[in-house]
Amino acid sequence: MIRIINLKEEGNKDIKAFIRKSKVVFNDVTKGVEKIIEDVKKNGDKAVIEYTKKFDGIKLNNFYVSNTEIEDAYKDCEDDFIKALENAKENIKEFHKKQLKNSWIWNKDKGITLGQLYNPIYRVGIYVPGGTAAYPSTVLMNAIPAKVAGVKEIVMVTPPDKNGQVNKAILAAAKIAGVNKIFKIGGAQAVGALAFGTETIPKVDKIVGPGNIYVATAKKLVYGSVDIDMIAGPSEILIIGDENSNPKYIAADMLGQAEHDELASSILITTSIRLAEMVKNEIKEQVKGLSRREIIEKSLKDFGAIIVVEDLQKAIDLSNEIAPEHLELMVDNAFEIVNEIKNAGAIFIGEYSPEALGDYLAGPNHTLPTSGTAKFFSPLGVDDFMKKSSLIYYSRESLMKDKDKIIKLAAKEGLTAHGNSIKVRFE
Amino acid sequence: MIRIINLKEEGNKDIKAFIRKSKVVFNDVTKGVEKIIEDVKKNGDKAVIEYTKKFDGIKLNNFYVSNTEIEDAYKDCEDDFIKALENAKENIKEFHKKQLKNSWIWNKDKGITLGQLYNPIYRVGIYVPGGTAAYPSTVLMNAIPAKVAGVKEIVMVTPPDKNGQVNKAILAAAKIAGVNKIFKIGGAQAVGALAFGTETIPKVDKIVGPGNIYVATAKKLVYGSVDIDMIAGPSEILIIGDENSNPKYIAADMLGQAEHDELASSILITTSIRLAEMVKNEIKEQVKGLSRREIIEKSLKDFGAIIVVEDLQKAIDLSNEIAPEHLELMVDNAFEIVNEIKNAGAIFIGEYSPEALGDYLAGPNHTLPTSGTAKFFSPLGVDDFMKKSSLIYYSRESLMKDKDKIIKLAAKEGLTAHGNSIKVRFE
Repeated sequence: MIRIINLKEEGNKDIKAFIRKSKVVFNDVTKGVEKIIEDVKKNGDKAVIEYTKKFDGIKLNNFYVSNTEIEDAYKDCEDDFIKALENAKENIKEFHKKQLKNSWIWNKDKGITLGQLYNPIYRVGIYVPGGTAAYPSTVLMNAIPAKVAGVKEIVMVTPPDKNGQVNKAILAAAKIAGVNKIFKIGGAQAVGALAFGTETIPKVDKIVGPGNIYVATAKKLVYGSVDIDMIAGPSEILIIGDENSNPKYIAADMLGQAEHDELASSILITTSIRLAEMVKNEIKEQVKGLSRREIIEKSLKDFGAIIVVEDLQKAIDLSNEIAPEHLELMVDNAFEIVNEIKNAGAIFIGEYSPEALGDYLAGPNHTLPTSGTAKFFSPLGVDDFMKKSSLIYYSRESLMKDKDKIIKLAAKEGLTAHGNSIKVRFE
Repeated sequence: MIRIINLKEEGNKDIKAFIRKSKVVFNDVTKGVEKIIEDVKKNGDKAVIEYTKKFDGIKLNNFYVSNTEIEDAYKDCEDDFIKALENAKENIKEFHKKQLKNSWIWNKDKGITLGQLYNPIYRVGIYVPGGTAAYPSTVLMNAIPAKVAGVKEIVMVTPPDKNGQVNKAILAAAKIAGVNKIFKIGGAQAVGALAFGTETIPKVDKIVGPGNIYVATAKKLVYGSVDIDMIAGPSEILIIGDENSNPKYIAADMLGQAEHDELASSILITTSIRLAEMVKNEIKEQVKGLSRREIIEKSLKDFGAIIVVEDLQKAIDLSNEIAPEHLELMVDNAFEIVNEIKNAGAIFIGEYSPEALGDYLAGPNHTLPTSGTAKFFSPLGVDDFMKKSSLIYYSRESLMKDKDKIIKLAAKEGLTAHGNSIKVRFE
């Protein structure tokens, strides 16, 4: 079961052992994945057909998901599920619209205009895992920010099952989110096809979405040829609680995190040893009724912990050091400490803002930086689907004023033709 | 010499041959670079000392550049160089300050508050190449946006020469830009040291700055453990000109681009065959007086071109397809077509806004996406040194209204503990 570590008593105990750090650089699958991508780049659809047969166990000559297939899937879904998806869509759209940036220009001085142009990325690929990790919520969270940014074409890929079918809830979510094209392909071959294009699958400019180790490795390999989103690891929650926090809620949120997979991490940091004990007991009770009990217990044993610290400041410092994907502030007056949080993917404030609310419905993105990468990565958002161009305009008089400085700096770098390009304008 | 391709006459001639596309995925140096990084990760300073001896030809037991060394270098620089650097610094700072984003909250509804928190990245590493590619301007362009963003610690690395010295102009620029620590190390070993830390070199959260193939490969390999900036290729310019453009200025700007290195690319797209011929002649004349003539001629022969097209719209379309790093609009009323430019790193408007102005002094960043990556990458800027956290607050009443939808979506994904975390709050 989950351990309690009392840092008040055990002092400087090294807690690094169970805090997962960002991913290792190299892995054993790289070579195999390289081969698949090279093959898809060279042989296009033919290679994709072969790998789909090999890895997904189905020979498909056509990957394209037809409109009829999508409409049928949509009709097969229960009404309340569709309604919930529609509601989630509206909330996600509204929140992401608040993120939109405008192009701007700045008349810095007479004869000097500078600025930045914002443009959407033209075509984006979304990877959606199949099988048990086929999450319709993920389709919304990846496609809607792209739509809001103004992306013209969203291409979704998702692996087929042994009968050549894809998850109906996924197709319904794609329809609701406004995905433009869907292909039944998965794995490294799908990433290769999106990165370089094949006869039937269009080359995209950016690939986003979660995936297993093969998909993650493939994305890292094609980075630079296309853009990618962050490299996501197993999911995590960190909860900060005090003597007044509700142990039942905290336990439930930790269990929710732990059910994702055996590598998921659930940590409570608290100033109260009493709360620590109560949460531990609550976890024991609540886990009994849960369908994914085995996964949860393994996850809590390996990557879970309840850490007792001296005071709230220590809890905040430790949280900033861990840089969790999800951070719940279950303390009194939680809003007051928000500004002390430096590193976290999403911050959930107060007792009635559980992680599950953010996973599905509130509107902010659930694609968040994991494994400590919140120190430098951000939640997926509209910015990820736009890019900027700088604008520079100088009049003749303005350039004249600055010409000697430019010529001097160019000369110092040995770039005389740079200097010449200024000189010829004033000869 | 540079070729003229008349698309009016030659029709659909395939011009892809000389338009460089984004980098290939794999390269021969990966294995060697992996080994260096693993070694530095494992053996720290000891490994860095060995690789510095091997690749830079100097045994250094201490990499740290002292304050005395920096002050002496600064004093050794000419006054007008220092003044030009100071002026560039002010312009870069002013432009990048315009990019700063504020944290925001949104009271969406009674009992619902959402938002985004912006925080600077804590510690950043800047790679600065040595030897002939040691550019003080690059120090400013990488360090100042980080400063403006609020980065607490900027660590610069740059390789030593055979005598254990580093370029004085680089040190002066680092002092002016406000770099906090400088180490005399370079190559893949420097990237490994910054990514994982050693006994003397602090681990950073993000690595930026240009470098050769070893540095670029190392950055790509450590991506995910730290963040990196874009993967930059050889530099490029694309100029759009019409019958009224000044051939002398265009030729000078193409020569300025071509002197960077033999792989640099200079392209003119014009509606006027007359301009095409005149620019070709001007290039022939001006190149005679330039110090880097050999590099220029090789670059123009391999990657240069003057392309004649039917009309301005075709020029714009082709430019958007190429997605150049630098784009000069040397046509009448250039401002009017800016909004049609979808893909470009920086856009230079009119006859008196040559690329060299942007390289050194105007203020926008000169670190720009190359090789067609302007389709998805942006100029380096303040955004690259900040990260976001989502904020989510719901009251009990607000969560209650939405609870059934969340429980439904969680159930559909088989995540019953997620549903449980909502249910326990209303039992």
